[in-house]
Amino acid sequence: MNKNSEPSERTDVQKYPDELTQKMKITLDKNDFSAWYNAIIELAGLSDKRYPIKGMNVWLPYGWKLMTNIDKLIRDEMTRTNHEEVCFPVLIPKTEFQKEADHIKGFDAQVYWVTQGGETELDIPLLLRPTSETAMYPMFALWIRSHADLPLKNYQIVNVFRYETKQTRSFIRVRELHFFEAHTCHTDFEDAERQIQEDLEIMKNISKKLCLAYLPNKRPDWDKFAGAVYSIGIDCLMPSGKCLQLASIHQYKENFSKAYNIVYESETGEHKHVHQTTYGMSERLIGAVIGVHGDTKGLILPPELAPYQVVIVPIFSKGENAKILEECHKLQDELLANGIRVHLDERDIRPGNKYYDWELKGMPIRLELGPKDIKAKQVTVVPRDTGKRVQLRVDNLSEQLKQILAEFAERLYEKSKNLLESSINSPKTLDDAKDKFGILKAGWCGDIGCIEQIEKYLDVSMLGTPIENVKFKGECLVCGKPTEIFGYFSKTY
Amino acid sequence: MNKNSEPSERTDVQKYPDELTQKMKITLDKNDFSAWYNAIIELAGLSDKRYPIKGMNVWLPYGWKLMTNIDKLIRDEMTRTNHEEVCFPVLIPKTEFQKEADHIKGFDAQVYWVTQGGETELDIPLLLRPTSETAMYPMFALWIRSHADLPLKNYQIVNVFRYETKQTRSFIRVRELHFFEAHTCHTDFEDAERQIQEDLEIMKNISKKLCLAYLPNKRPDWDKFAGAVYSIGIDCLMPSGKCLQLASIHQYKENFSKAYNIVYESETGEHKHVHQTTYGMSERLIGAVIGVHGDTKGLILPPELAPYQVVIVPIFSKGENAKILEECHKLQDELLANGIRVHLDERDIRPGNKYYDWELKGMPIRLELGPKDIKAKQVTVVPRDTGKRVQLRVDNLSEQLKQILAEFAERLYEKSKNLLESSINSPKTLDDAKDKFGILKAGWCGDIGCIEQIEKYLDVSMLGTPIENVKFKGECLVCGKPTEIFGYFSKTY
Repeated sequence: MNKNSEPSERTDVQKYPDELTQKMKITLDKNDFSAWYNAIIELAGLSDKRYPIKGMNVWLPYGWKLMTNIDKLIRDEMTRTNHEEVCFPVLIPKTEFQKEADHIKGFDAQVYWVTQGGETELDIPLLLRPTSETAMYPMFALWIRSHADLPLKNYQIVNVFRYETKQTRSFIRVRELHFFEAHTCHTDFEDAERQIQEDLEIMKNISKKLCLAYLPNKRPDWDKFAGAVYSIGIDCLMPSGKCLQLASIHQYKENFSKAYNIVYESETGEHKHVHQTTYGMSERLIGAVIGVHGDTKGLILPPELAPYQVVIVPIFSKGENAKILEECHKLQDELLANGIRVHLDERDIRPGNKYYDWELKGMPIRLELGPKDIKAKQVTVVPRDTGKRVQLRVDNLSEQLKQILAEFAERLYEKSKNLLESSINSPKTLDDAKDKFGILKAGWCGDIGCIEQIEKYLDVSMLGTPIENVKFKGECLVCGKPTEIFGYFSKTY
Repeated sequence: MNKNSEPSERTDVQKYPDELTQKMKITLDKNDFSAWYNAIIELAGLSDKRYPIKGMNVWLPYGWKLMTNIDKLIRDEMTRTNHEEVCFPVLIPKTEFQKEADHIKGFDAQVYWVTQGGETELDIPLLLRPTSETAMYPMFALWIRSHADLPLKNYQIVNVFRYETKQTRSFIRVRELHFFEAHTCHTDFEDAERQIQEDLEIMKNISKKLCLAYLPNKRPDWDKFAGAVYSIGIDCLMPSGKCLQLASIHQYKENFSKAYNIVYESETGEHKHVHQTTYGMSERLIGAVIGVHGDTKGLILPPELAPYQVVIVPIFSKGENAKILEECHKLQDELLANGIRVHLDERDIRPGNKYYDWELKGMPIRLELGPKDIKAKQVTVVPRDTGKRVQLRVDNLSEQLKQILAEFAERLYEKSKNLLESSINSPKTLDDAKDKFGILKAGWCGDIGCIEQIEKYLDVSMLGTPIENVKFKGECLVCGKPTEIFGYFSKTY
């Protein structure tokens, strides 16, 4: 296009059906959240759910870019902590899958089975991995010989498959799931426990970059991962008032290593089973970023995730366009040189349409530069979340923008933290707890019957108990017995 | 570890079975190539074929790193040419798969079928994509409305599945295949032809970065892609004398758009079917890099692909270790600052073991720094391919190394080009052509019977005819009729 052309009618901004843009404008309360969430995914071009298999969606270019940006944040943490990336086959023989009894019980109802290759019926049916324990562990048994091979810290970022019978929802409950899974082997329980502490630290780093606050919960025994000794769930509160599990961390002890015969020779020559852990996250991270940060104008992306942190929009004025563009290019070069991801939007459409586009896509900062700004040696800056225009002097602009980006990220994180913390309720009775928004914190006597009453009466699930020792003195919400234990409960995705 | 410790016995270099290292030392002639190829993959830790499904191998950390480095080269070219990355589901409903008659005929015998989800028999069987035409095109039909949506240029990098009945071989013939596929839609045949020219240019750039020479061939009609109007195969010659197809580019015209009803409204308001092309590459690129460049010491990696372009090995000397390491760190910082990917190997093992390791892994340049070098203000540099030690002055070292890396890449490319060009034979008779190493160039009268005789008598396949007009005057190798057409033939993987 002609860089110096005057602004003309909007031509290349796609026009969306009114019905969709209307849905976006619905207030973000818990009743309308679902319609808003679906509309924003369609409008921002993240995922297309019209693929002819229910719950298997197509990643559109912008959605895939955000997902791979999250993958990059994960890979950076994995490299920092000396995990090595591998890639295992999608298919697992039934015979390997069946070796750990609890595991197969947990997944049997939701695996896809491959029974035929070409015209040939397969001797041993193969399943599409729902998770990769049973693919990896026969190989770990071959790879691990001695204590010098430990710890083994592997991970992969792949798609996994679950034959879901519940209602599907983009990024939150799907049948083909973009998945991160780390699998580690250790000499003993203590080293495996250290790994779990490292996983929690990684989780903290990643969620800080995504500006998401969360509650870590030790899942109740009946809800732990199939084959685990215990499971930690990382729960995030969505504006709907429901919790979304972002990640899970599992302690397996020797459950799998005994089933798969993963044995090492210790320094003293004994043969011992390894202790194992896993850490999993998925495309739900995108679901949380959309849901927790977004507003009625579209996505709001954390600066660490956004493809561009700053978008420059030239404000043209008859006769001055060449000069304005020249200044924009200078600005772009300066910000790039200072490590800011910046894009100059030179499209031949009205500035207002550009604002609409970049707001929908969630870029953190819009920077406008027009003839008045140039005269005054300033730029106009508009953070996506506040929408408040600010004029900045051009001197030392990169440093000022970095500061604004840091504050922007902090605001997003604080908003998420406030939503979470202000939504934890501690009612005195079951009736007081009825239909409360968010998370229920309730004393619990230790009797499973009382949990069942809470879950049934309030239509919630137990998230679990805190992973760290927290002092508590209270009564069981159901039977009133004094107790020092409490649990968290909520509706969940 | 203690950075200043004195060298001691090799501890963390894995010891491989003698049988394997012996296989590596076998001369690289065509008879032993296969044993050498398998040994190098195992020794360098690229892939593990002991996974309990034949032809589905595990990507080990080093192999996966090389593959993702190649993916990055591809993504860079895709970005440059305005392709957008998407990610489609692995599973395709049988009903969609069956819409293009030739396509299903070509793939029916080699697809894996998913027939069951949990305990439930699926109403419509699903297949694991062998390639993604039939997954993508129903969606393209929804996405494309008008000429303004064209050209549509999408690609994805995913795994695909083929129920191979032939013998499998790591990276060359596997049942789960790491795959790049670009799919484009155009207003007319001419624009699709321009796309194919762009694909050929991309191929040229990527193969130059991988230092691989190739022959582009228009495949004979009976060997074109299932559903294509014509196919171009990109063939590389391996040291075994067999050709390996590195990539393929297909012109579909309206074959698929008619089957999937992909229609656009032209500027004049007519409804027309789009013209389509595809471009595919796979993990065979790694197979070619291993086979074409490697030697009896291990891999030899092109500088654009190598995880490190330079590895610094400190040569310790009693009492001077701290100073030597300090100089090594200074050197590392300087090279990094100049954009060279460099690694400082501080492991507490003998230098000789480090040499062995990095040679096996194929890093282009080893840089040794010992007390003599420091005194003389020089470094010792050893290119992986020649193994010849050269002393360089430390002034302006980065520029000197960049020059050496460029020459190194040029040598690899020239070696590949020489292998290819010197292996093209033009014998006068079928008997002269018998058991010749490499590629046969033969005049052809145009009669299919003559091709059949060549293929059968010599046990070769027709690669095809040149994609550009090349002047030729000769006789048909079989019947002797004068002709202006010729074809290439060889044994193939």
